[in-house]
Amino acid sequence: MKNPVIVTVTGAAGQISYSLLFRIVSGEMLGADQPMVLKLLEIPPAMEALSGVVMELNDVASPLVTEIVATSEPDEAFKDVEYALLVGSRPRGPGMERKDLIEANAQIFSVQGKSINDNGNANVKVLVVGNPANTNCLIAQRNAPDLNPRQFTAMTRLDHNRAVSQLAEKTGKHVTDVSGVMIWGNHSATQYPDITHATVAGTSATDLVDQDWIESSFIPKVQKRGAEIIAARGSSSAASAANAAVEHMKDWVSGSDERRVSMAVYSDGSYGVEQGLFYSYPCTCAAGDWSIEQDLAVDSFGQQKMSATEKELVEERDAVGHLLP
Amino acid sequence: MKNPVIVTVTGAAGQISYSLLFRIVSGEMLGADQPMVLKLLEIPPAMEALSGVVMELNDVASPLVTEIVATSEPDEAFKDVEYALLVGSRPRGPGMERKDLIEANAQIFSVQGKSINDNGNANVKVLVVGNPANTNCLIAQRNAPDLNPRQFTAMTRLDHNRAVSQLAEKTGKHVTDVSGVMIWGNHSATQYPDITHATVAGTSATDLVDQDWIESSFIPKVQKRGAEIIAARGSSSAASAANAAVEHMKDWVSGSDERRVSMAVYSDGSYGVEQGLFYSYPCTCAAGDWSIEQDLAVDSFGQQKMSATEKELVEERDAVGHLLP
Repeated sequence: MKNPVIVTVTGAAGQISYSLLFRIVSGEMLGADQPMVLKLLEIPPAMEALSGVVMELNDVASPLVTEIVATSEPDEAFKDVEYALLVGSRPRGPGMERKDLIEANAQIFSVQGKSINDNGNANVKVLVVGNPANTNCLIAQRNAPDLNPRQFTAMTRLDHNRAVSQLAEKTGKHVTDVSGVMIWGNHSATQYPDITHATVAGTSATDLVDQDWIESSFIPKVQKRGAEIIAARGSSSAASAANAAVEHMKDWVSGSDERRVSMAVYSDGSYGVEQGLFYSYPCTCAAGDWSIEQDLAVDSFGQQKMSATEKELVEERDAVGHLLP
Repeated sequence: MKNPVIVTVTGAAGQISYSLLFRIVSGEMLGADQPMVLKLLEIPPAMEALSGVVMELNDVASPLVTEIVATSEPDEAFKDVEYALLVGSRPRGPGMERKDLIEANAQIFSVQGKSINDNGNANVKVLVVGNPANTNCLIAQRNAPDLNPRQFTAMTRLDHNRAVSQLAEKTGKHVTDVSGVMIWGNHSATQYPDITHATVAGTSATDLVDQDWIESSFIPKVQKRGAEIIAARGSSSAASAANAAVEHMKDWVSGSDERRVSMAVYSDGSYGVEQGLFYSYPCTCAAGDWSIEQDLAVDSFGQQKMSATEKELVEERDAVGHLLP
């Protein structure tokens, strides 16, 4: 058995975490031979609910959990953290404008970024799930000057998986036949799900579907899948988001076996995107690191979509510019 | 890759299933090399919510899922089923007596037992999770005369895991140090969590804790853990129940490696329990089958507890006697 690692999950009493934590303790994220200390962060009003989650985690009797810490203090939660999953975020309340929402979350993520910087392991890997995820990630990263910006990522893996599922359904093939889809930009309705370099059972996806389906069905369906699920279930996607978080972190840590995955990462200017934004790119993971796939051809339709979602990210960043160090 | 198996889950839009399904499709229950057709049963008013769960399951893009069928028709859900997880049950409504509850569930489980009998694979394995689980299991089994009663089981694995967790906490040891606990009888407040043959890091558990703790703390804590979690979380144990269901089925299918586990199974009269009741016993699993551990010494305190929980099961059975074939 390896030495225990420290995994921190925020918003730990929320719905996504309720799906996520039990998969983490079963070893799905870091492996069945990786013990862990689990640190759970919540806001004070949710601490009683969190105590119930801790009871249930204890009732799993997982061989991999050496200790569970439940706290409302970020510095305690992030002490020595090696894997930080920032799931909790402020949801939009009544009468709240999008700008208010971004600013409310900026407060949370600036505190957490600073705390990770000051308390976390020097090699900490951070995944932001809480929305608006890309900009929350930016804020956390900017408040962590001692860490490499590459240690911060935001989740677009759920969008990626949704794109795979839609393309498989449309072409009548199995999801395992689909490879090479990618999500560009913001985890929001401006994202660009792109199949121009995807294949289905070895055939180019664009030979199997027409541009009208891509523009009128596929892209809007992936962009608005969250709303479709809320309408059906009466609550938002939690289990599929948790699944994507497990996959994102697992691939980042253990490698993606040369498979293309989508991750919102620190832009180095690749594909002309403004440097420093957290922008979803096609990535591969190996040796505990990610890299952006380079030199994929982008057509004019794609370029327009990629610019639109970049523009939204710039606007989100500028809305919280006064809070960025 | 093996050929797909058919897995049916009832109450598929409910909270336990929401935790359970995503773990099943990740391969945790039947293995990462076992593809499956997933058949999901719900009552008509829950079909829209179920459609949202199906969307989320599709958005996992699991390599193991070959097809998902969502239906409100038991015969469609149980067609050729090899692994049936009967999770859905009628919860207690306002003004409902326990007898009403048992009878309402008897209606559901008699239909499902008959449907499994008539439509399922001849080697189907059935796990009943929906409460009152032992008696629901009895009703299903009695309505399935063509199947071996050994193919029906009810879940006490959550109680078992809770007992492990409590004993580890009390003795300051890790859950992996604890072995040999067992749950006798009904999955209800009359169950008897028994540590007389348990060890903690090789030492007899009864040498580490006193009888007063067992009687005044341990047993009531395990019996009433569900209520404690509801009080803290505001909703009942779903994720830990789902985890126990995964473990129960996994061990039954793949073996428990000589570990003692607790399962409510068809009584053959072992330990003087009335034959034909579904009573939780200490079991081991091997080669796709379970067996009751025999000849464990039972002290007079234990005998009294075992009889009390048996008496409750007899009463539950007699309450629905007019519905049993």
